[in-house]
Amino acid sequence: MTALASPDTDIADIAALARRARAAARVLARASAAQRTAALTAMAAAVRAHERDILAANAEDVAAATARGLSPAMVDRLRLDPKRIAGIAAAIDEVAGQPDLLGRLERAERRPSGLEVARMRIPLGVVAIVYESRPNVTTDAAALCIKSGNAAILRGGSEALRSNAALGRAVAAGLAAAGLPGDAVQVVPTPDREAVRAMLQLDELIDLVIPRGGEGLIRFVAEHSRIPVIKHYKGVCHVYVHAAADLDMAERICVNAKAQRPGVCNAAETILVDREVAAAFVPRLCAALAEAGVEVRGDADVQRLAGGAPVKPATDDDWAAEYLDLIVAVRVVDDLDAAMDHIARWGSDHTEAIVTADPSAAERFLREVGSSTVVVNASTRFADGGELGLGAEIGISTTRLHAYGPMGAEGLTTTKFIVRGTGQIRT
Amino acid sequence: MTALASPDTDIADIAALARRARAAARVLARASAAQRTAALTAMAAAVRAHERDILAANAEDVAAATARGLSPAMVDRLRLDPKRIAGIAAAIDEVAGQPDLLGRLERAERRPSGLEVARMRIPLGVVAIVYESRPNVTTDAAALCIKSGNAAILRGGSEALRSNAALGRAVAAGLAAAGLPGDAVQVVPTPDREAVRAMLQLDELIDLVIPRGGEGLIRFVAEHSRIPVIKHYKGVCHVYVHAAADLDMAERICVNAKAQRPGVCNAAETILVDREVAAAFVPRLCAALAEAGVEVRGDADVQRLAGGAPVKPATDDDWAAEYLDLIVAVRVVDDLDAAMDHIARWGSDHTEAIVTADPSAAERFLREVGSSTVVVNASTRFADGGELGLGAEIGISTTRLHAYGPMGAEGLTTTKFIVRGTGQIRT
Repeated sequence: MTALASPDTDIADIAALARRARAAARVLARASAAQRTAALTAMAAAVRAHERDILAANAEDVAAATARGLSPAMVDRLRLDPKRIAGIAAAIDEVAGQPDLLGRLERAERRPSGLEVARMRIPLGVVAIVYESRPNVTTDAAALCIKSGNAAILRGGSEALRSNAALGRAVAAGLAAAGLPGDAVQVVPTPDREAVRAMLQLDELIDLVIPRGGEGLIRFVAEHSRIPVIKHYKGVCHVYVHAAADLDMAERICVNAKAQRPGVCNAAETILVDREVAAAFVPRLCAALAEAGVEVRGDADVQRLAGGAPVKPATDDDWAAEYLDLIVAVRVVDDLDAAMDHIARWGSDHTEAIVTADPSAAERFLREVGSSTVVVNASTRFADGGELGLGAEIGISTTRLHAYGPMGAEGLTTTKFIVRGTGQIRT
Repeated sequence: MTALASPDTDIADIAALARRARAAARVLARASAAQRTAALTAMAAAVRAHERDILAANAEDVAAATARGLSPAMVDRLRLDPKRIAGIAAAIDEVAGQPDLLGRLERAERRPSGLEVARMRIPLGVVAIVYESRPNVTTDAAALCIKSGNAAILRGGSEALRSNAALGRAVAAGLAAAGLPGDAVQVVPTPDREAVRAMLQLDELIDLVIPRGGEGLIRFVAEHSRIPVIKHYKGVCHVYVHAAADLDMAERICVNAKAQRPGVCNAAETILVDREVAAAFVPRLCAALAEAGVEVRGDADVQRLAGGAPVKPATDDDWAAEYLDLIVAVRVVDDLDAAMDHIARWGSDHTEAIVTADPSAAERFLREVGSSTVVVNASTRFADGGELGLGAEIGISTTRLHAYGPMGAEGLTTTKFIVRGTGQIRT
């Protein structure tokens, strides 16, 4: 687990590693569903069997992180315990239990030429994941990549180096038990950013990069990559309380979307209140938010209508803010169009919700808001792969190429055209 | 149609143009199918009505190109005549007649939470196409983008500047007739590569870039773009004549795949012959290719077996070559695995065909060859959007992100998640 000697060595090493991944990807793409499932089942068993080693490695990471003065929140994301280990193993088993995608035929049709044309689902090839803190990403990403027939290059954060290496040994045990090449999942041992930068140039060897972590890491990857990147920078999610909203429901949804788990990307950051219900709704909303410990930053209307609940004045910075904290921006808007204009201007294409009992307002919102997840009468907090039916999630995309919104195993595949003829030539 | 004053002006102008495209994209995404179809129908009518102006503009381009000494093949690609104008209009009408995609719901399901989850098909946003020579790309790309609800920025080659501008006026007439914003399709007037380079930095305003033309143009775009690029560099397509091939069929397919139209990307460049049938097939193959005017470059086995037909010695350069000409590389391989290894090493992920009467060999080839189109018992020449059922084609992708293989209107869309609840909050 030594750091590599120089940037030159890094670059040669990372290219060699990617070439091995490419060779392993071809083997993995041809492996049967039973073989890939066996690898996952053995991987989950190895995580459980090696619990003691994994916890010991993690304890060293946690001690080092604490000594380096990392924030308690970051140390908490890093820390493993027997319950979290059980969760990691269960997540691998869940991926193993999902239906297999590879080789599936879609949209078969017979052409006028007599050719039988269909699309066959295949892996992407080699997927690199660059991430921070949470060690469970190591096994989640490995499981989703093996499930979908992709080789994976996993580069976690320096703070989780020992934990990721220990989990990587469980992944390797799973691959070995199923007779699959160990190079199919490689945990990159170096914490050096130069190695990441070198890896991001290898567009002939790596098909996709997924950065997961803070906005700084994601921007670093997006700026330096010649390989396609699937990413989201941030989640500035909105709840719009429409004129025809059930105000009890609206209050529950607003408080849940903001306060149930404020540090995640699908938490609401701005609440828009229709002018028609503002006088009735703003006072009770502000009171309920205060009750939940949430600081409100409101426009002039909200400040005027808050009815004694504390409201700080909002600026344009608040409309753009991803607080990831118990703070929310609240604004009164004239109507549905004004709400959608606000979202188009300030949103991040992550998740927006409308609360309304009017079906035509709901339909317009669903159709015209361009974000990757659009919700009627429910909390924005449902925007994740598990809740939307994808099983595990390898990431969320707020750019429209390839995947848009939460992305699971299917997002790690594509389709090729297959054509069966009886000797056809073109004239 | 004046060239812009300086690189600085270019960059400001191209950003302003992209911002107008972004605003128009939002209008276009909300337009009804009837409105988008009306624009296409009016566009086709305008092409027919303005035939005289378009031909006059094209004659100027052709005269300038001839005076500059462009190759006859390039001048031919540039030249329009009444028949080609009719073809351009007919292609727009064909796109208009395709089923509409936008708003289509896919994979609707009810989750355990009671939420109704589905995916709704939506446009990508703003698509830039950078192309050379053929003026019909202007209207093909405009039609496919309008059909799929995307704004388009079209930057053709300097040699087709006047032709593209004239066709752009027909596009504008179609948009105006349907009440859609003219900024939805903008033909960039400057032939300056600096403007293209500036455009490729606008990843906040443009969602996708598609380069169409020679490998030099495509590499320029791929190297300088911060925006996702869909592309293929070249088509090194293979036909593998398996041990169980019907040799009459194999001969017809090999000659058709190579010689029917050698200058296109789905023409075959290498023929692989199974050792088991090499003695029987190589002599007749070489004779048939000679008859069709094709130069054969063969390995030692092919040279030995050619039976008097002329064969030049092949080098590794020949296995990598995209001749786009009446030249073909021919190699004897040991078996199906050796054929697939050759394709994996030397292929370009475009199109490969096997000729065989053995269903299990056909299935292995279909499943294990990773190229974007894989064909059994038919010519590689069928790998295009029209033949595979996509209608018109905006490009071909040999990289696996977003689209793989020929790409039509559906490739210009993505899906968002839509969620209908009854007040659900997350606990």
